[in-house]
Amino acid sequence: MIGIIMGSQSDLPIMEQAANFLKSLDIPYELTVVSAHRTPERMFDYAKTAKERGLKVIIAGAGGAAHLPGMVASCTTLPVIGVPILSSNSIDGWDSVLSILQMPGGIPVATVALNGALNAGILAVKILGTGNQKIAEDLQKYQDALKDKVLGTVDDIKAKHPNQYDK
Amino acid sequence: MIGIIMGSQSDLPIMEQAANFLKSLDIPYELTVVSAHRTPERMFDYAKTAKERGLKVIIAGAGGAAHLPGMVASCTTLPVIGVPILSSNSIDGWDSVLSILQMPGGIPVATVALNGALNAGILAVKILGTGNQKIAEDLQKYQDALKDKVLGTVDDIKAKHPNQYDK
Amino acid sequence: MIGIIMGSQSDLPIMEQAANFLKSLDIPYELTVVSAHRTPERMFDYAKTAKERGLKVIIAGAGGAAHLPGMVASCTTLPVIGVPILSSNSIDGWDSVLSILQMPGGIPVATVALNGALNAGILAVKILGTGNQKIAEDLQKYQDALKDKVLGTVDDIKAKHPNQYDK
Amino acid sequence: MIGIIMGSQSDLPIMEQAANFLKSLDIPYELTVVSAHRTPERMFDYAKTAKERGLKVIIAGAGGAAHLPGMVASCTTLPVIGVPILSSNSIDGWDSVLSILQMPGGIPVATVALNGALNAGILAVKILGTGNQKIAEDLQKYQDALKDKVLGTVDDIKAKHPNQYDK
Amino acid sequence: MIGIIMGSQSDLPIMEQAANFLKSLDIPYELTVVSAHRTPERMFDYAKTAKERGLKVIIAGAGGAAHLPGMVASCTTLPVIGVPILSSNSIDGWDSVLSILQMPGGIPVATVALNGALNAGILAVKILGTGNQKIAEDLQKYQDALKDKVLGTVDDIKAKHPNQYDK
Amino acid sequence: MIGIIMGSQSDLPIMEQAANFLKSLDIPYELTVVSAHRTPERMFDYAKTAKERGLKVIIAGAGGAAHLPGMVASCTTLPVIGVPILSSNSIDGWDSVLSILQMPGGIPVATVALNGALNAGILAVKILGTGNQKIAEDLQKYQDALKDKVLGTVDDIKAKHPNQYDK
Amino acid sequence: MIGIIMGSQSDLPIMEQAANFLKSLDIPYELTVVSAHRTPERMFDYAKTAKERGLKVIIAGAGGAAHLPGMVASCTTLPVIGVPILSSNSIDGWDSVLSILQMPGGIPVATVALNGALNAGILAVKILGTGNQKIAEDLQKYQDALKDKVLGTVDDIKAKHPNQYDK
Amino acid sequence: MIGIIMGSQSDLPIMEQAANFLKSLDIPYELTVVSAHRTPERMFDYAKTAKERGLKVIIAGAGGAAHLPGMVASCTTLPVIGVPILSSNSIDGWDSVLSILQMPGGIPVATVALNGALNAGILAVKILGTGNQKIAEDLQKYQDALKDKVLGTVDDIKAKHPNQYDK
Repeated sequence: MIGIIMGSQSDLPIMEQAANFLKSLDIPYELTVVSAHRTPERMFDYAKTAKERGLKVIIAGAGGAAHLPGMVASCTTLPVIGVPILSSNSIDGWDSVLSILQMPGGIPVATVALNGALNAGILAVKILGTGNQKIAEDLQKYQDALKDKVLGTVDDIKAKHPNQYDK
Repeated sequence: MIGIIMGSQSDLPIMEQAANFLKSLDIPYELTVVSAHRTPERMFDYAKTAKERGLKVIIAGAGGAAHLPGMVASCTTLPVIGVPILSSNSIDGWDSVLSILQMPGGIPVATVALNGALNAGILAVKILGTGNQKIAEDLQKYQDALKDKVLGTVDDIKAKHPNQYDK
Repeated sequence: MIGIIMGSQSDLPIMEQAANFLKSLDIPYELTVVSAHRTPERMFDYAKTAKERGLKVIIAGAGGAAHLPGMVASCTTLPVIGVPILSSNSIDGWDSVLSILQMPGGIPVATVALNGALNAGILAVKILGTGNQKIAEDLQKYQDALKDKVLGTVDDIKAKHPNQYDK
Repeated sequence: MIGIIMGSQSDLPIMEQAANFLKSLDIPYELTVVSAHRTPERMFDYAKTAKERGLKVIIAGAGGAAHLPGMVASCTTLPVIGVPILSSNSIDGWDSVLSILQMPGGIPVATVALNGALNAGILAVKILGTGNQKIAEDLQKYQDALKDKVLGTVDDIKAKHPNQYDK
Repeated sequence: MIGIIMGSQSDLPIMEQAANFLKSLDIPYELTVVSAHRTPERMFDYAKTAKERGLKVIIAGAGGAAHLPGMVASCTTLPVIGVPILSSNSIDGWDSVLSILQMPGGIPVATVALNGALNAGILAVKILGTGNQKIAEDLQKYQDALKDKVLGTVDDIKAKHPNQYDK
Repeated sequence: MIGIIMGSQSDLPIMEQAANFLKSLDIPYELTVVSAHRTPERMFDYAKTAKERGLKVIIAGAGGAAHLPGMVASCTTLPVIGVPILSSNSIDGWDSVLSILQMPGGIPVATVALNGALNAGILAVKILGTGNQKIAEDLQKYQDALKDKVLGTVDDIKAKHPNQYDK
Repeated sequence: MIGIIMGSQSDLPIMEQAANFLKSLDIPYELTVVSAHRTPERMFDYAKTAKERGLKVIIAGAGGAAHLPGMVASCTTLPVIGVPILSSNSIDGWDSVLSILQMPGGIPVATVALNGALNAGILAVKILGTGNQKIAEDLQKYQDALKDKVLGTVDDIKAKHPNQYDK
Repeated sequence: MIGIIMGSQSDLPIMEQAANFLKSLDIPYELTVVSAHRTPERMFDYAKTAKERGLKVIIAGAGGAAHLPGMVASCTTLPVIGVPILSSNSIDGWDSVLSILQMPGGIPVATVALNGALNAGILAVKILGTGNQKIAEDLQKYQDALKDKVLGTVDDIKAKHPNQYDK
């Protein structure tokens, strides 16, 4: 099971993209709000019990001075994926990106792009796929579908602009 | 008493500047290493017991993804002063500045300049001085001494460059 | 009493958040406009008389080349809290953040997040709370309420997404 | 087995930190140079055959316009960990950080801190540890050792500065 | 013939500006979508066959971690012009600018301004014009027309503001 | 007379603020469009003849890669004031600020804030005022009026928030 | 007479470049230290009496949260030239650049490049030159000498690299 | 023939890398100093006569407020390649990068990486190669040599770290 947590309910529209990806592959997840700053005990307990509760990977999203992913990583040996979120009063997202990315030696957080919750979901599945052939195949299908989607737009655009390149 | 903590022993040369200022005014302090990421339980316990152990203000310095000041602030009602530290592999200090400064509503950290541990010490004393006339007077003397030091350089420079302005 | 000042009336919607927090705890404050650049004498007089007029802490907000917090700090031994404000024609807020944060050794300003006036109010109360048990208890209640608010959203989200974690 | 690749031999002193961590836990790895821009066919072939050659995770480090991690990720379903490297003529590392981090939806790269190859190694092991109890226990020991190292410095510093906090 | 490619259909409104400029000078072009990350084989094949298919210059636009221009450049000896595109979730465009600009020694990309597809089209024509007198003359006419357009606005403004300068 | 020039008609709404300030003090000005890149001869001629045509100061506004102020400064001994303008496709204004500010030794441009055309107008008048007592007095009145405007807002706010400070 | 002030004696090696330029043209100047934060009364008095003491232009240099140029400008109608200085613990100079440049409407500071004290001296002379033909001629000679210096290097380089362009 | 110009003799160590690349392929070049700000007439004349003097491409390098590449581009229909140079007092190279890259619509500059003069040389040759089969073949050999150099380092590293991947 994948744990998905976020610092605030306002992060939900972004973080749901990870949940929806997992749902599309029938991978179980658990999604909730855990605030590093407003509910520190809840965060510690969540992180410390994550493994025994059956989580394999934790996805944590937060904005501003985003301490949630790094603090969770400090309390578990599970891989933690961090999603920087562009919140109001952010300085263009730099604060959440740097607070999550620049972890000190010893405590990694796997950081994805600003607002990149979909990619966090995919990365979590890639991690599960290292030990599960069925999941790896589903990922391959997903990656193939991305390609097909691009090729579909190739045809759309051809109506308007010349293009003889047909690979 | 003022608590001074830092994320790593490598921060000591900077953070000692706060301690030295407190020593110069005979204000008691306690200085130690508390790592948010490597000793999270120690950090939580430190913050939660700070008040009952007699601390009035906590000064916390850290570099990179600097979570120590904000996490300590989330576990105490004492004022917490954050010192961003320019560490190796930092992205010019932006990471520690933004990780400390951009705290969410509800959990403030009083942030000072990059490597500004001296100012953190002075700020801690200003806070004590709000309820202590003797300390407030010592601060006034310190501020007067800063002025005298500047005026001393005025005379030095006059030997080389003309200056009739003598206030 | 807490002094709240700002460089321009346009900063009022942000700076009122500090005032409202103080009001919610029945802590007296005084709020007015003091412009470092347009009313420099008023600023100097304000800062120099702040202590004798009974202020304990000064909260100063400004945008752009934000000199108000630092200049006030240079004329008083009271702790000064600086609020960088995102104004029109700002370069993404970097100008006000850096003008307030990067004070030289000797003259600290306790800087909070961009537009972080609520946190400035809380920080001012934390400072008062170092010498006042009643205020410290009110702060604890406020911090507990933040936690309860987060836990409320946990229940909301559970309706839509699975979550068995119930701490 | 973990694959470790880098864009240039000049990245080796940083990237060896990942290899050394793996060695310390007796986890097999393979380390080589694969340049996205100078050996694109080698890169494509490396990525496409990675899984069948037995790799579980790929760690890719690069500086400047760092395309290696993202391009490898586009050709495999294995998790790819990206290490931004501060190279000469870099613009303070921003180029490699953003080129690796800001991947589009569908193709994640698990990005670690600037020059964070040690953390890349740890993250790779955490991923292996999701399906291997022995590895998870080794990680726990490593994390405990980090804590002990911090506590050792606590004692060092106590000789010079007062500290009664002994957790 | 000029090849115009882009990472995603969403880049079309910007990239069409290059196509429209070429059309205005009757220079043949071919425009399509080629995604470095979603269709890597298509990208490689496109780049490797570009020359034999008769392309002289390739214009490649992409946003975020924009690898398309640099990867295409690594697989052809044709000049490649890179257009950084400001996409959603970009960090103010810095990601695409730096991912395209900061190519390593050996593999240049001719980078133009953020969203500068028009300039990419003009630059492609300048390159053709180095070996074609007719095209060089068309460019001169275009550059003259820019001048005339500016001089037209000079007259417009004169109605409202005084101006005796009439060159 | 003050010369006001700008790189494009689209800069007019900003640059008019300089003209309007001059008008309010009955100081003659001449406003027109001079593009460094689209009308380079016009720019050179404008700069080289500026002095003999009776200009005392030149105000030049431009956005993006803003070369107009610096190039004009290279062709005249008159003081040149540069106004960085936030244009579309700018990278948050950094491009125009740095292109104008960072002139090499020997060729200064007096740079004002992003979109700071009003301040450019005031600065031009200050320069005229160094040799003209009447203008200096008008400037003093303007500066006094700024103060009165601030004090007016003090009274407005008092209705809503307490304030006993009445200087 | 030109006033040259700086926030700290450590700024002298940079700020002397302005003084030396003035000396080379026999233009009188007065150079001293005036700290906005450590000697605020001295700064106010300096600015308020500058005009009556015979100053025509004030050059003010400062680093970090550089308030000196803007605060001096708020207390005089003389033109003020600001020199951002790269000091220790600066965040790459951004702090002093933005603190000086981004002044609010009404109070301009003529900002020059980072460490651009030479240009500040030249700009001050340009301002004097608007009312003084002799000074304007000296400036023209200086500008011509810059050109001759460049042309001298053209000959140097020709020995090593081919160059038939001889204008 | 390729023209190579730079704003100052201090740029020569970087800009020579372009010349050396051209020399290695027996492509004639002309290298000299042309300063936009110190020798504006020389710059204009150089640009306007470039084509008739037989130049096909112009490579222009400059630091700080780097106007040379863009101004040259405004006076010729030849393709202009801009090299941002990291000079002293630069703000980390951002000034030269943005001054060269962010050209307005109509006047492109083909910008390469910070200090990327080698790539400017290669790009110039790629442009020549669009109309010259021999040059295109030389480029292919150069690109192949880059690959061989990488493969050489693969063998070096194998001695120290395991690697079975041998493509």
